[in-house]
Amino acid sequence: MTAELICIGTELLLGDILNTNAQYIAQQLASLGIPHFYQAVVGDNPDRIKRIIQNAIDRSNILIFTGGLGPTPDDLTIATIADFFNTKLVERQEVLDDIQQKFARRGRTMAASNRKQALLPEGADVLHNPVGSAPGIIWQPRPNLTILTFPGVPAEMRQMWQDTAVPYLKNQGWGRELFYSCTLKFWGISESELAEKVSSLLDSQNPTVAPYANHGEVKLRVSARATSQTEAEQLITPVASQIQNIAGLHYYGCNDDTLASVVGQLLQTRGQTLAVAESCTGGSLGKALTDIPGSSTYFWGGVIAYENRIKERLLEVSADDLAAHGAVSHPVAKQMAAGVRERFGTDWGIGITGIAGPGGETPEKPVGLVYIGLASPDGTVESFEYQIGETRGREWVRRVSVSHALDRLRRSLEP
Amino acid sequence: MTAELICIGTELLLGDILNTNAQYIAQQLASLGIPHFYQAVVGDNPDRIKRIIQNAIDRSNILIFTGGLGPTPDDLTIATIADFFNTKLVERQEVLDDIQQKFARRGRTMAASNRKQALLPEGADVLHNPVGSAPGIIWQPRPNLTILTFPGVPAEMRQMWQDTAVPYLKNQGWGRELFYSCTLKFWGISESELAEKVSSLLDSQNPTVAPYANHGEVKLRVSARATSQTEAEQLITPVASQIQNIAGLHYYGCNDDTLASVVGQLLQTRGQTLAVAESCTGGSLGKALTDIPGSSTYFWGGVIAYENRIKERLLEVSADDLAAHGAVSHPVAKQMAAGVRERFGTDWGIGITGIAGPGGETPEKPVGLVYIGLASPDGTVESFEYQIGETRGREWVRRVSVSHALDRLRRSLEP
Repeated sequence: MTAELICIGTELLLGDILNTNAQYIAQQLASLGIPHFYQAVVGDNPDRIKRIIQNAIDRSNILIFTGGLGPTPDDLTIATIADFFNTKLVERQEVLDDIQQKFARRGRTMAASNRKQALLPEGADVLHNPVGSAPGIIWQPRPNLTILTFPGVPAEMRQMWQDTAVPYLKNQGWGRELFYSCTLKFWGISESELAEKVSSLLDSQNPTVAPYANHGEVKLRVSARATSQTEAEQLITPVASQIQNIAGLHYYGCNDDTLASVVGQLLQTRGQTLAVAESCTGGSLGKALTDIPGSSTYFWGGVIAYENRIKERLLEVSADDLAAHGAVSHPVAKQMAAGVRERFGTDWGIGITGIAGPGGETPEKPVGLVYIGLASPDGTVESFEYQIGETRGREWVRRVSVSHALDRLRRSLEP
Repeated sequence: MTAELICIGTELLLGDILNTNAQYIAQQLASLGIPHFYQAVVGDNPDRIKRIIQNAIDRSNILIFTGGLGPTPDDLTIATIADFFNTKLVERQEVLDDIQQKFARRGRTMAASNRKQALLPEGADVLHNPVGSAPGIIWQPRPNLTILTFPGVPAEMRQMWQDTAVPYLKNQGWGRELFYSCTLKFWGISESELAEKVSSLLDSQNPTVAPYANHGEVKLRVSARATSQTEAEQLITPVASQIQNIAGLHYYGCNDDTLASVVGQLLQTRGQTLAVAESCTGGSLGKALTDIPGSSTYFWGGVIAYENRIKERLLEVSADDLAAHGAVSHPVAKQMAAGVRERFGTDWGIGITGIAGPGGETPEKPVGLVYIGLASPDGTVESFEYQIGETRGREWVRRVSVSHALDRLRRSLEP
């Protein structure tokens, strides 16, 4: 029993809109445990839509369509599906009434073109649209093949999915077997390094373990099929903790955890506070910390010392060190961290100084060179040097610098 | 001559990630005038990938693949394509060297698994990846069929597309009829207001004018088909300037301009400097300003005053006003702006204080209430009150607050 998604709309092929419907339905199918191996996008063209249907019915039992249900001449989805299965369209009085009422409620009269939206394949059930004028269908044109159609408008599609499709699919006995998945997150180790460390687990079938990476962060998704969440967790938990043991401190959290949220939890547990001094990141670290609701209980704020004079004036960075070592150096990172901790009266202080580029590099100091200072409650101050991929550009260097800074503090806070 | 897009990655089928690559490549193909009728998404599974290739080669001449070029065992794209066309993989020394150098630059040694990324089909050209380790290929496995592969990481895919794919496709004589488009950007006016003001232009055919909106920002895309960029510009320019006249100060820039980049240009022209004091935005304004390369010439930095004590200590906000009016108030916003301008010695100062939520609201002060203070070179200080949609959540309130602050300064800087 597998589903296949067919998104119809020339605007998708022109790149005018992002196909968020595909992600939503993919997530929904995964959570219902309905396997889903193919997605297709095709324009509002009957012949091409039929080619896609022909490919799909050879390999899938549930075809889910989005888009092309509107009243305009280029909306052909329903007519094309009916034609493919040699079924005639019948006007549904209840749909026509519903559309007319919706127009009436907005004090408008139904346009003639909307009448077309009441034409549905003979034998198909109406998939009611509580929001817009376009209804969908639930139809079995032949044994062991079910077709569901949804409008392209995400809000309408989502509500129809929840109100009608989910109960229908569950009634069919699908979505009984749960697909439960947990994403483990790591910092400070590359995807290939981690994959090698856990290689023995990458072939396991239930749960499966799949690595992926973005913005320097590595993730492992552990996914299990089971008939209950408890059973799924019993499959996932031992594998997850095995991975955590292998990864050690490189593992920082799972699912919705971020480095900033984990640091926040650790600071709260300890009842400690933090202030930051940012040069090349220009506020990005503060933003990351305050993205977390409730961060004001442990994050007091910081100084964006983008100009060197500000490093001296507000953070008491020594002018001599700035001259001798340059703003991007161990001593300046340390003094920024210590200075902001001192000035704000917090337990911890972080300083970031680096070369985000483009430009600003010297022979000794390439773009991507970043120093992170960490001032601890006991008064000790450390600093760390990073060479962040200079080819990846300014945004990358800034983003990864923020993660390195948060990760340094996290490792110091971990019990 | 038609192209077809094949996106490979189980994470797409699980809905873990949004397929932004599909939209980007669709836009690019449209702008090159290369017809594109089908997109497919399939998991990291050789048999299914081959089914998709089989379908595609019957109807398209250019197959564009994204994803599955990584070093881990589930990255199968190149091997599967080679196998489909019965071609053996050959290790490319130049690719291996390139990967090793990239690791070396980050002070790492290449993992054994990365070696696989140097295996490319015999006869295929290397599509160089200037950023990450995974190269792509440009390959004609048979006459009248071209295959291009890109990594799934959007930043890498986009740079490789621009650096290599676009010149290659143009060399092939594709993309002759140009689809040129220019996006006009607005702040402080709603999509519907703007659409009404320019309604007469929305039906025009060449150029077309299409409105869209995101995160409170409204855009109009003006698109023309032409055989040369000059011809396209001759079609677009009069319409664009007509729109700018209608929109007045609500228009702030076009294409890659952002409110932060426009503010930066205006400050540079005047030779003036800026410092910011942020409470609810927690560094987001500083980040937005320093997202712009070269911003250090006019942006000196700021204070993230997330804790009220910091507002007093570093910005001389009066304790009495904090007590009498609360941190989210006109007087505090003004004192933050004036305080940071004073303390940093800049021409302009901005202060932001508000309730980003969730929580923290009072009967008089709902979530989304934001005050923005603006201190000017002549010493005058204004403040502005905003009620930002409280239903839209913390990220929205913070993001829109930053845009309002930048827009306030922009309007004061505009000649």
